[in-house]
Amino acid sequence: MKETRYFYVPDAGLSSELPADEATHAIRVLRLKEGDEIFLMDGCGHYFTAEVSVASSKHCMYRIKETVEKNKDWSGYIHLAIAPTKMSDRMEWMLEKATEVGFDEVTFLNCRFSERRTLRTDRLDRIIVSAMKQSRKPWKPVINPMMDFSEFVKRNDDGQKYIAHCYNEIARKDFFEEISRPQTSDRITVMIGPEGDFSIDEVRQAMENGYEPVSLGRSRLRTETAGLSAVMMSQIILSRR
Amino acid sequence: MKETRYFYVPDAGLSSELPADEATHAIRVLRLKEGDEIFLMDGCGHYFTAEVSVASSKHCMYRIKETVEKNKDWSGYIHLAIAPTKMSDRMEWMLEKATEVGFDEVTFLNCRFSERRTLRTDRLDRIIVSAMKQSRKPWKPVINPMMDFSEFVKRNDDGQKYIAHCYNEIARKDFFEEISRPQTSDRITVMIGPEGDFSIDEVRQAMENGYEPVSLGRSRLRTETAGLSAVMMSQIILSRR
Repeated sequence: MKETRYFYVPDAGLSSELPADEATHAIRVLRLKEGDEIFLMDGCGHYFTAEVSVASSKHCMYRIKETVEKNKDWSGYIHLAIAPTKMSDRMEWMLEKATEVGFDEVTFLNCRFSERRTLRTDRLDRIIVSAMKQSRKPWKPVINPMMDFSEFVKRNDDGQKYIAHCYNEIARKDFFEEISRPQTSDRITVMIGPEGDFSIDEVRQAMENGYEPVSLGRSRLRTETAGLSAVMMSQIILSRR
Repeated sequence: MKETRYFYVPDAGLSSELPADEATHAIRVLRLKEGDEIFLMDGCGHYFTAEVSVASSKHCMYRIKETVEKNKDWSGYIHLAIAPTKMSDRMEWMLEKATEVGFDEVTFLNCRFSERRTLRTDRLDRIIVSAMKQSRKPWKPVINPMMDFSEFVKRNDDGQKYIAHCYNEIARKDFFEEISRPQTSDRITVMIGPEGDFSIDEVRQAMENGYEPVSLGRSRLRTETAGLSAVMMSQIILSRR
């Protein structure tokens, strides 16, 4: 199974040694030996075919045989800003699936009604790397640490900016229809609230900062399902442009 | 929290007593008493507002105050036929999410390369009911037991029929583009293979039986992610028609 021979090496083109955890996996689990073929990805769009040159108990050195540069499967940029769910396994699977489907950046929001205000991004990082390998995507999405909602909306991000919410008293456009229309920018930022939704005040604050209020459809979705839906919809549009 | 007061009662309009497991939840967990308001859904598109009339240690009787009939949020019919994954938790979350998003029927396929050939549909049924309550959908998707691939493809289902596969040697159309085009039927059946994909022979057999070979996009998706993607794409199209 060649699939298990994919390794994530951030500076693969410059280095000649696997990082410690990848080396352990290569040597202790896969029992790779000198001369074995391995595949590296640097998270920035490059694949490398390499050969193990030294396999000692703690180190795994390699020699690159071929470098392939791959263009991203989608145009533009998908940035998901989401309030983490109370149960962190729900965020974990959402990130696994979003990575498989393809997206660029995630920011965790600290909102008025957030059920969780701290998050271990190192664990999420490992889940993303594993999903990158599994789906053979050489681009690594950026994970940002938790940020206060009001700080996030004040950033001067350009492109299309949306906030999904469930209040009937604030008119919402359909997210999928909005991103389907010809737009001046292919950069999509979409905010998804916590289990108890954004506060009305937060929705207004976002609107004042250029965010369009939207709905993701007629269904009532959990936070993590809404996050994945937004990524899938963006991917459908941006990968077919 | 009214949300926890939703109960699934298949024959709610004819009966006046909660089924045993729902009664236990109502009385032991929520500690409902005579006169408390509850909400019932029958899985066939009806909501009921009711009042607890008797709350004994084992039984919970109700009196219906109002019946609301709801049209489905999407036109047509979404039937997912999927080979269950080796790890059953992956099928469980997929069904939870597909129910939230909205679909009509799931059939589990026994394929040449299936990693799992038995499945406990009773557990999946409970997950679907819980997702129905959470997303307040009064329609219950049909769960069919495992069926052999060759038996399934020979059924004379009408409507649009698709088989998703990853073989480069068999030309595939883009699933989303296909379902976006005007079609004579709003009934979509889509087949998703196991971890090791369908066999080439299975893909050919499906094509002989009227299935169009398709791809779900440029990403390499896990079985459960592919299943959910197909449901989400169908839902995007059918709920906006």
